[in-house]
Amino acid sequence: MRMYDIIRKKRDGGILTKEEIRFFTEGLTDGSVPDYQAAALCMAIFLKGMNRDEIAELTFAIRDSGERLNLSAIKGIRADKHSTGGVGDKTSLVVAPAVAALGIKVAKVSGRGLAHTGGTVDKLESIPGYRTNLTDEEFIDCVNRIGASIIGQTRGVAPADKKLYAIRDVTATVDCLPLIVSSIMGKKLAADDDIIVLDVKCGSGSFNKTPEISRELAECMVDIGKKAGKKMLAIITDMDRPLGAAIGNALEVQEAIETMKGRGPEDFTRLCEELIAGILCLAGKGSREECLKMAADCLTDGSALAKFREMIEAQGGNSAVIDDYSLFGTARFMYKVLSPVSGYIASADTEGYGAASLLLGAGRNTIEEDIDPCAGIILEKKTGDYVKKGDIIATLYTDREESIPASEEKLVSSTRFSDKKPEEKPLILERVD
Amino acid sequence: MRMYDIIRKKRDGGILTKEEIRFFTEGLTDGSVPDYQAAALCMAIFLKGMNRDEIAELTFAIRDSGERLNLSAIKGIRADKHSTGGVGDKTSLVVAPAVAALGIKVAKVSGRGLAHTGGTVDKLESIPGYRTNLTDEEFIDCVNRIGASIIGQTRGVAPADKKLYAIRDVTATVDCLPLIVSSIMGKKLAADDDIIVLDVKCGSGSFNKTPEISRELAECMVDIGKKAGKKMLAIITDMDRPLGAAIGNALEVQEAIETMKGRGPEDFTRLCEELIAGILCLAGKGSREECLKMAADCLTDGSALAKFREMIEAQGGNSAVIDDYSLFGTARFMYKVLSPVSGYIASADTEGYGAASLLLGAGRNTIEEDIDPCAGIILEKKTGDYVKKGDIIATLYTDREESIPASEEKLVSSTRFSDKKPEEKPLILERVD
Repeated sequence: MRMYDIIRKKRDGGILTKEEIRFFTEGLTDGSVPDYQAAALCMAIFLKGMNRDEIAELTFAIRDSGERLNLSAIKGIRADKHSTGGVGDKTSLVVAPAVAALGIKVAKVSGRGLAHTGGTVDKLESIPGYRTNLTDEEFIDCVNRIGASIIGQTRGVAPADKKLYAIRDVTATVDCLPLIVSSIMGKKLAADDDIIVLDVKCGSGSFNKTPEISRELAECMVDIGKKAGKKMLAIITDMDRPLGAAIGNALEVQEAIETMKGRGPEDFTRLCEELIAGILCLAGKGSREECLKMAADCLTDGSALAKFREMIEAQGGNSAVIDDYSLFGTARFMYKVLSPVSGYIASADTEGYGAASLLLGAGRNTIEEDIDPCAGIILEKKTGDYVKKGDIIATLYTDREESIPASEEKLVSSTRFSDKKPEEKPLILERVD
Repeated sequence: MRMYDIIRKKRDGGILTKEEIRFFTEGLTDGSVPDYQAAALCMAIFLKGMNRDEIAELTFAIRDSGERLNLSAIKGIRADKHSTGGVGDKTSLVVAPAVAALGIKVAKVSGRGLAHTGGTVDKLESIPGYRTNLTDEEFIDCVNRIGASIIGQTRGVAPADKKLYAIRDVTATVDCLPLIVSSIMGKKLAADDDIIVLDVKCGSGSFNKTPEISRELAECMVDIGKKAGKKMLAIITDMDRPLGAAIGNALEVQEAIETMKGRGPEDFTRLCEELIAGILCLAGKGSREECLKMAADCLTDGSALAKFREMIEAQGGNSAVIDDYSLFGTARFMYKVLSPVSGYIASADTEGYGAASLLLGAGRNTIEEDIDPCAGIILEKKTGDYVKKGDIIATLYTDREESIPASEEKLVSSTRFSDKKPEEKPLILERVD
């Protein structure tokens, strides 16, 4: 078998076999397929597509390209949730302890943030002392004792995906459904969960610009998960507004804690409840209504928060932050952004909000950069709100005084104002199962 | 400007600007554009195409990527001919001296053969002592004194093309009109000729499978040459049969000499006359009929052959080969291939014939390999001939006895036999000017 022939076949719109796809991923992993051939194939896949079977085979090949997490030592039903990436998305911080509080195990491997998107691992590390680099034994022990643990990406999982992503990133082949699906699901399936609930974002800044593309993405991932024997649900959610009010690591953890104290932002709380209920339903805990009720209750009766406290302590963190947010530390500068006009906030380019937060030090441009856990943005007004010129629309937190003007400019230019009240769009657009 | 954005633009079917195209070729040349980005762009160009303006800009950018031959010291009108590559195509060996004999200068830079295609430089080097590595001064002096000289590719010309070709070769992006045209014409325009006559092959084995594709290729190259101020003609010729009877370096030189002695194969002689006449017409030497007459005459009156003798001597070769072919040396083994059936030879896969010749040692698989100048094939029967089972259809010449069975098998399997006499196709299909 030759890589040349595989590229030519896809170039001409052919359907790759399982053997051809594995020849490619194995060559990526062992270095025998050079970058330029991988790049040519990525572009051919981008422009010629892949059918469902090819995408499934690529997913399984990525899953099998490295070590697979062995979670058989964990007792009980194991669930995971995954978001296709967003700004201000801290649902994992709430869903994991809530689900654990309701008797389902969550052994979650999360990523770090890059560019405008945040990462759950970075958020947790804003808690003083919190360790995300547990050994396999510590990780499994944590899940068995407490019910949930969240750690960082382990090195040996899905190496073909790492190589492929690095190439896609510099060859304009990231926004491609077959490659997105196989990257997400290849990594997810390398962990050995019973239930996977997906939060597929739909919004202006992302690949999933339209409900149609989001639905196709959701259906394709659900389909592949089922092929691999998983119980699957995907929820398509609106990303034309940021989720909650907080963007930035410690700020988002605080918002998650507030939510588990029963006083989180309405949209964020609603989404958490949906995701928790989705997992409960797939685990056979009851009807959708019953599961939604259980989800809402655990956010107000303190049981999710108690579990979060246990999680923090088990991973070496200072759980006193739950009662005293000043223990997160504070940013040196605080800056109020005022509305330049009077009118309704018609929509928000969430990617732009992420970029504004990045400028303040809350994210990283390259994987090596350090981030400032206390930097970020609190949105004081949201999509649908009416503001008067001069009203405070957001507060910026940063140690980098010099970055404030650029961040403010980015934030304001990413907000669309209108004379008309925008039509109210539901946060949850669709459910695919 | 970023390579990423250029790839994305072409990926989405956009039209690249002159500046973007030059950013790419300059980056290829200086190494700042990595191979994987070049590969992704090649695949995007393959699948999304380029319009005439983009192809012209890419051609000029390739031309300008390195040194340009300065032929201003050559007195008189300068002409070149180029073939899109074929098997048994030794027209340059006849056209260059013939045109020189008729008062037009030919300063020709030729390539070496690779895979199944032969190279004019390899053919000339089968003449003992013939040097194809003249210095620029020697080259120009030769042309001024004798009227014609043929040398090998000089290192500094069109380096962007060398890089690009190496990438296309391993990423299944060779057979792509914009990339073929810009590669051929970029190199041709780096030489400073007044007249360029193109021989565009049309046949089963090549990119130019149909007259339509060949016509588009021819029109595009003629168009770009004219844009660069050249007088242009393209002749589209049939490649569903080998040209002449000889394949292999010394064997082809002998056939070229026979042709200049007025006793060459009819099809090959006819094509040489057309190419010579094409150049004469563009140089204003007369009407097409007058030019065809002059071309035919110089092949029978000994004037082309006398010029070829001068060329050989000026480049250090032993011109006695013209009168005594044994001076080329001889292959150790000679093998007669017999027809396996009775019937007409309906068509020939010339690429297969080239591969059969390659097996005998007449070509090279990689650019480093040595070739055997005496190896090759003489076709005793050609397309349209009737053969009886057991008739000799070809003679193989080689030093590699062990390669004979594979070569014979390749040759026979590349020949299509039929009960019906094939329709006679003209050798010259079309003229584009």
